[in-house]
Amino acid sequence: MEELATEKEAEESHRQDSVSLLTFILLLTLTILTIWLFKHRRVRFLHETGLAMIYGLIVGVILRYGTPSTSGHDKPFSCSQEDRPFTTLLVNVSGKFFEYTLKGEISPGKIHNVEQNDMLRKVTFDPEVFFNILLPPIIFHAGYSLKKRHFFRNLGSILAYAFLGTAVSCFIIGNLMYGVVKLMKLVGQLSDKFYYTDCLLFGAIISATDPVTVLAIFNELHADVDLYALLFGESVLNDAVAIVLSSSIVAYQPTGENTHAFDAAAFFKSVGVFLGIFSGSFMMGAVTGVVTFTKLHCFPLLETALFFLMSWSTFLLAEACGFTGVVAVLFCGITQAHYTYNNLSVESRSRTKQLFEVLHFLAENFIFSYMGLALFTFQKHIFSPIFIIGAFVAIFLGRAAHIYPLSFLLNLGRRHKISWSFQHMMMFSGLRGAMAFALAIRDTATYSHQMMFSTTLLIVFFTVWIVGGGTTPMLSWLNIRVGDHVPSVEEMSESHWLYFRVGVDPDQDPPPTNDSFQVLQGDGQDSAQRNRTKQESAWLFRLWYSFDHNYLKPILTHSGPPLTTTLPSWCGLIARCLTSPQVYDNQEQLREEDSDFILNDGDLTVTYGDTTITANGSSGPHTATTNLDSRRTKSSSEEALERDLGATDHEVTSRGTQLVFPLEYNA
Amino acid sequence: MEELATEKEAEESHRQDSVSLLTFILLLTLTILTIWLFKHRRVRFLHETGLAMIYGLIVGVILRYGTPSTSGHDKPFSCSQEDRPFTTLLVNVSGKFFEYTLKGEISPGKIHNVEQNDMLRKVTFDPEVFFNILLPPIIFHAGYSLKKRHFFRNLGSILAYAFLGTAVSCFIIGNLMYGVVKLMKLVGQLSDKFYYTDCLLFGAIISATDPVTVLAIFNELHADVDLYALLFGESVLNDAVAIVLSSSIVAYQPTGENTHAFDAAAFFKSVGVFLGIFSGSFMMGAVTGVVTFTKLHCFPLLETALFFLMSWSTFLLAEACGFTGVVAVLFCGITQAHYTYNNLSVESRSRTKQLFEVLHFLAENFIFSYMGLALFTFQKHIFSPIFIIGAFVAIFLGRAAHIYPLSFLLNLGRRHKISWSFQHMMMFSGLRGAMAFALAIRDTATYSHQMMFSTTLLIVFFTVWIVGGGTTPMLSWLNIRVGDHVPSVEEMSESHWLYFRVGVDPDQDPPPTNDSFQVLQGDGQDSAQRNRTKQESAWLFRLWYSFDHNYLKPILTHSGPPLTTTLPSWCGLIARCLTSPQVYDNQEQLREEDSDFILNDGDLTVTYGDTTITANGSSGPHTATTNLDSRRTKSSSEEALERDLGATDHEVTSRGTQLVFPLEYNA
Repeated sequence: MEELATEKEAEESHRQDSVSLLTFILLLTLTILTIWLFKHRRVRFLHETGLAMIYGLIVGVILRYGTPSTSGHDKPFSCSQEDRPFTTLLVNVSGKFFEYTLKGEISPGKIHNVEQNDMLRKVTFDPEVFFNILLPPIIFHAGYSLKKRHFFRNLGSILAYAFLGTAVSCFIIGNLMYGVVKLMKLVGQLSDKFYYTDCLLFGAIISATDPVTVLAIFNELHADVDLYALLFGESVLNDAVAIVLSSSIVAYQPTGENTHAFDAAAFFKSVGVFLGIFSGSFMMGAVTGVVTFTKLHCFPLLETALFFLMSWSTFLLAEACGFTGVVAVLFCGITQAHYTYNNLSVESRSRTKQLFEVLHFLAENFIFSYMGLALFTFQKHIFSPIFIIGAFVAIFLGRAAHIYPLSFLLNLGRRHKISWSFQHMMMFSGLRGAMAFALAIRDTATYSHQMMFSTTLLIVFFTVWIVGGGTTPMLSWLNIRVGDHVPSVEEMSESHWLYFRVGVDPDQDPPPTNDSFQVLQGDGQDSAQRNRTKQESAWLFRLWYSFDHNYLKPILTHSGPPLTTTLPSWCGLIARCLTSPQVYDNQEQLREEDSDFILNDGDLTVTYGDTTITANGSSGPHTATTNLDSRRTKSSSEEALERDLGATDHEVTSRGTQLVFPLEYNA
Repeated sequence: MEELATEKEAEESHRQDSVSLLTFILLLTLTILTIWLFKHRRVRFLHETGLAMIYGLIVGVILRYGTPSTSGHDKPFSCSQEDRPFTTLLVNVSGKFFEYTLKGEISPGKIHNVEQNDMLRKVTFDPEVFFNILLPPIIFHAGYSLKKRHFFRNLGSILAYAFLGTAVSCFIIGNLMYGVVKLMKLVGQLSDKFYYTDCLLFGAIISATDPVTVLAIFNELHADVDLYALLFGESVLNDAVAIVLSSSIVAYQPTGENTHAFDAAAFFKSVGVFLGIFSGSFMMGAVTGVVTFTKLHCFPLLETALFFLMSWSTFLLAEACGFTGVVAVLFCGITQAHYTYNNLSVESRSRTKQLFEVLHFLAENFIFSYMGLALFTFQKHIFSPIFIIGAFVAIFLGRAAHIYPLSFLLNLGRRHKISWSFQHMMMFSGLRGAMAFALAIRDTATYSHQMMFSTTLLIVFFTVWIVGGGTTPMLSWLNIRVGDHVPSVEEMSESHWLYFRVGVDPDQDPPPTNDSFQVLQGDGQDSAQRNRTKQESAWLFRLWYSFDHNYLKPILTHSGPPLTTTLPSWCGLIARCLTSPQVYDNQEQLREEDSDFILNDGDLTVTYGDTTITANGSSGPHTATTNLDSRRTKSSSEEALERDLGATDHEVTSRGTQLVFPLEYNA
């Protein structure tokens, strides 16, 4: 009969698991249906993530106050062991042996009010779930869909904002919060220890911005592309910096355990840990991204599966080596979009894109609805009004100290200045999201961490709701140019299909048919515009670009000029070995396709890749004028760069015109 | 320092988790690369699943004999509790409290050799992973991609094979194995208890056939479509029957615990459990499949996400209610392919198909490579030569007793007889796969279950390898017609894209342009063929079809005739409420599109859905001849049926011809 009882209990537990998962799925379903309603009616005052949080809150309230508080089966069972806890335990229960696994430590004060409610316990996920399952697809998708053209144009600024800015923000918030904590101690509001390192950790956690709401609205309104690139690029790299920064701060802690004062050795160790983890994760991501050099053109299913597995193995490999998987996955995504994407077959490009899009969408909405839920179901909240108000002030000041001085410094070097209205918009868009939550929930064992978690939750709620609703008024108040089209992945694929069905590109007016001819000639205002963009682009990027275009692209993809033309003549043998045979075949054509690796804009050309090439600016004239081998290479690399940086509207238009009659070019 | 030690240990454990997952991912990657090589070189003697198993075996050997046997941290810790084990345990270790969760019981004899190797433990998954994570996408994909046309034509036979056949096979194998067990007891080879119910359970486990290998080869060789439908349909429903059968047998056990003799009450209880679980799961799957009545046409991402969530929630809902999730998901897939698929937008159709295709592919290959691994890493194998030989003989006899008599009986009622060569082929194709493995690994606590698991593993290995390699010779030896094209989903999508790129359908010779005209006229040999197929189709199916076409389709999808024409006039109000407004708009067009819901064949029409309708047989003439309202409905339902059952080749050809010039029909 005992056996039966245990079996019944296991069955009951399995059923509760199903119910709790079902709760989340229904939450997501509800969110999706409401999103649809909102999109349908063009509601913009609330974003889908804000919505998911509200639904999460409602379900959290129901679970907290609606379900009976069952006192679990876990009476404390005190069998003192000698030294330290085992990971597994064999317990002899009246002759039968049962195996137990270690779940974690419980602080002595919490023994009695822990897990009083089965349902609440069931809906509480292991924090590692966020890091190992939900964050990777979100971050990978961000990397994979990075808008390359404008991203690289603003590379220097983005790197400055992401690295320097996050460090500044972390340091400022940390110090301000230390002041707040001191104040709390004076007033007598602090009931447990709160060290300086905890404050710095809070600074790192809360410095990860996540302007998903703002970007979605930018997309809908077709706001300025440079502002979009700055915000998106910063937030993506931001996350990587914050995650590594927080683990470096945690790595600092143990050594200074006794004093929690400044310790130079430990500090440099932390800096070393930061650099080591970051560069290790970066290298690993970049290498695996590059290694995914697929040639399985004919079998899209195999290709897609392989692509998916390689991205995931990057994550696991980094984790297995002690690096940060999420950061590795980010750089893996960027590299794969840059190199691997070129090697994929036409169908796999859309397949991988769609697969990661769905995963990203589900993971993101799940995290946000879980956040709403956690406000009520998490049982160790510590809300301290002083700390919360202090935190809001601190993130405001931290963001200000991050954006304005940096923008001033950057503007000294930039030709295309970051205007005041852009700076205000960036200041306004510093909302916190999934990454801050995941970092905060990772460790909620101590008093200080619990307080930080509760505060982070509130900050995420308010910034998402307020900034999400205020973006549209803010844009018009700041007079930021709206209308320059930045198609989102989703929109793009819709228009792509709509186009297929009706034969007309929805994004444009009646196609100007002589425009494609103009681009082909490569003269007039088009060429003037190119010269302008050429001047504007960063020197760092130009240097890297020509190296990438002349050497990396030919080795790693089937596009770009053959190495035999770009390398000095004495490297002839190596060049021949490393160059893919397809490069020779496609040499003339694929050099032009360079500009198509940009994920979103390239979408339109994906399907009719072969036919669009002819319409794709500057094929004959430019290369014809340069005959020397070395000069030719130089100029063709610059041409490709110009094309990348140049105006996209012409290309899209000419493509649109072409696509309607694909057969003309096959015949 | 203790804290640090625990943290280090947790980190180490996390790293090992990553390594073990990485092992599987690399295994899958290797499998994919080899599959590609095989497909490239048209190797057919080994299927990808067989290959995955071989790689799994190799890695299993390396893990077993290559890694050091660390003696885990788990010294048995005997603190006798009074009554029964708790699910969670709080242990006081020198003043600190640690939480432990129950993992399971360990048989007393195994305490010392359990988990001696950390790595082996890490690569051993919880059996529930197979049931709750890996099987659902496989089974759902099977249901979603069921070839409707030929499936419904052979519905009666498939149901007979699946239900009656599996029951017969289970009973015969169970009894034969009981004889073998008796023999073993006589010889003294049996060291523990082995009841009659265990033998029956083994019969149920091993009766789930999985001809994935055979079907893949059928696809490549374009073997007979009816044979394909019989085999595929049987194996899909087979799995559902076997899973419910095995849980019914387990449900029988406890009551007869004392005697293990026949107990009529318990038997009927088991039968009741079988019927209850099966019909419950069926209803649940069908209902949720139907409920997914999406109207989110404009947002493919939302639609796809919703579709995915609904399928998963079917699984969880069934599990939460105590039914079988896998069975529910199967019927959910079938229903969704039949109704929901019609409501999806053009892009979502390809998205959902591709998403589930990738999930199915990864899950299937994972299971098979895990099987290879488990042969060496599973630590409780019991290989008994007599039992194994007995099992091989029993499954052979069981399959024979299942196929031949049933085919004889079915042939009495069938116009289109199942020939001897087909019967031999079905007999030969009775290989065991993922489902048998998942059922066997679910419970390996007792001696008899461990022996059954080891035997099942060997049976899966040998049937997959031998049958996989022998299908092509067997087909030619049995003179089974090869060449009638049955495109697989994978192939289809490839050709679909290839078509887009080059503008030529790879499946066909120079397109006979006057063919489409012939179909439009609906006369000649085409019409004659229709009459023939009309005679052949089963009466059961005809009855259901007309109900489905006239009532269910109009209510649940945007296609089919409006209810106002099919319902009697006094139901006018209800009919108007239930009919989707789009039905009226599309009435003339969409009635014809009926034949396109067949997932695989419909693929070609998906993209140019609007333009192909005109080419899709019998639009004007047939409906024009019938003017009375009631007769008109009747005849149009029969027409649609005829179209469904009719020859597909004409349609594909005419579509192929059309697709090349889509604009002609838009203009």
